[in-house]
Amino acid sequence: MRVLGVDPGLTRCGIGVVDVNNRRIAQFVHVEVLRTDSDLDLVDRLGELSIMMRQVFKAQNPDAIAIERVFSQLNVRTAMNTAQASAVAMLAAYELELPVFMYTPTEVKAAVTGSGRADKKQVTSMVAKHLKLETLPKPADAADALALALCHSWRGVGQQRLSAKLVSMGVTA
Amino acid sequence: MRVLGVDPGLTRCGIGVVDVNNRRIAQFVHVEVLRTDSDLDLVDRLGELSIMMRQVFKAQNPDAIAIERVFSQLNVRTAMNTAQASAVAMLAAYELELPVFMYTPTEVKAAVTGSGRADKKQVTSMVAKHLKLETLPKPADAADALALALCHSWRGVGQQRLSAKLVSMGVTA
Repeated sequence: MRVLGVDPGLTRCGIGVVDVNNRRIAQFVHVEVLRTDSDLDLVDRLGELSIMMRQVFKAQNPDAIAIERVFSQLNVRTAMNTAQASAVAMLAAYELELPVFMYTPTEVKAAVTGSGRADKKQVTSMVAKHLKLETLPKPADAADALALALCHSWRGVGQQRLSAKLVSMGVTA
Repeated sequence: MRVLGVDPGLTRCGIGVVDVNNRRIAQFVHVEVLRTDSDLDLVDRLGELSIMMRQVFKAQNPDAIAIERVFSQLNVRTAMNTAQASAVAMLAAYELELPVFMYTPTEVKAAVTGSGRADKKQVTSMVAKHLKLETLPKPADAADALALALCHSWRGVGQQRLSAKLVSMGVTA
């Protein structure tokens, strides 16, 4: 299963892709940060992000998209921009008929480090460890996108295994 | 000039269309409210809204889109949904290469009623008066969308006249 994680943002939008096998071992595939120019107006920034997002979704051909769930932040303007960048990712997934899964930052940190209160450094170093990366993924948006992909990979495979187990036991939904 | 106003929302998204001549007289063209089912998940709601939005933009063939600028609201979740619905409208305009103009609620109220502090009733009744409507536009989202279209119509024509005047005086940008 291939999972593409999106850490939504208008200035920097992290994209991280991993493959996971059914023994839950994840392998690094791709990481990048999509950027839009803060001098452009909002419509052009969203439009350009949408074009880049669809290109990367098509090029990476994932089975699922994992997006960070947006919460209110201290800075309302940033929260609005993040919500809009996340809408761009959801629309791209909708158009390409890719299933979308949303995770809170706490869920992602807990999945990757074992603690929902881990800091950025801990997330980055655990992502590098799980994916056997020789250098730490940078910036934080890139590491967060890989962490999202890992979080869904493990949950997704866990759910698939559970479904298979239930089916083998004769239990159906 | 034809202007399409969008009062963004996920549950109810107002669409109002007016034509304005260069004596600033506006004529009613169309009003409707796009709705998405709150039982659907967010991705499907945004996706369906996007399809409806592009259809109405194409069908109405406006020269400009006027969208209400989203501010923080008391309810953070509603503010996020409004920001995302507004992103859907901006992306539809971007794809169809339609120019987008954003106005705050205060600017719209001031343009339509003469007071930035007018209430919903006053906005609705002034919209009906300006557009010579026999019945009041309902719900409030429909009236607000028409108010946005009127606000931009008057500003847009004013700007065109100013530009023409400056050009005739030999002043260029």
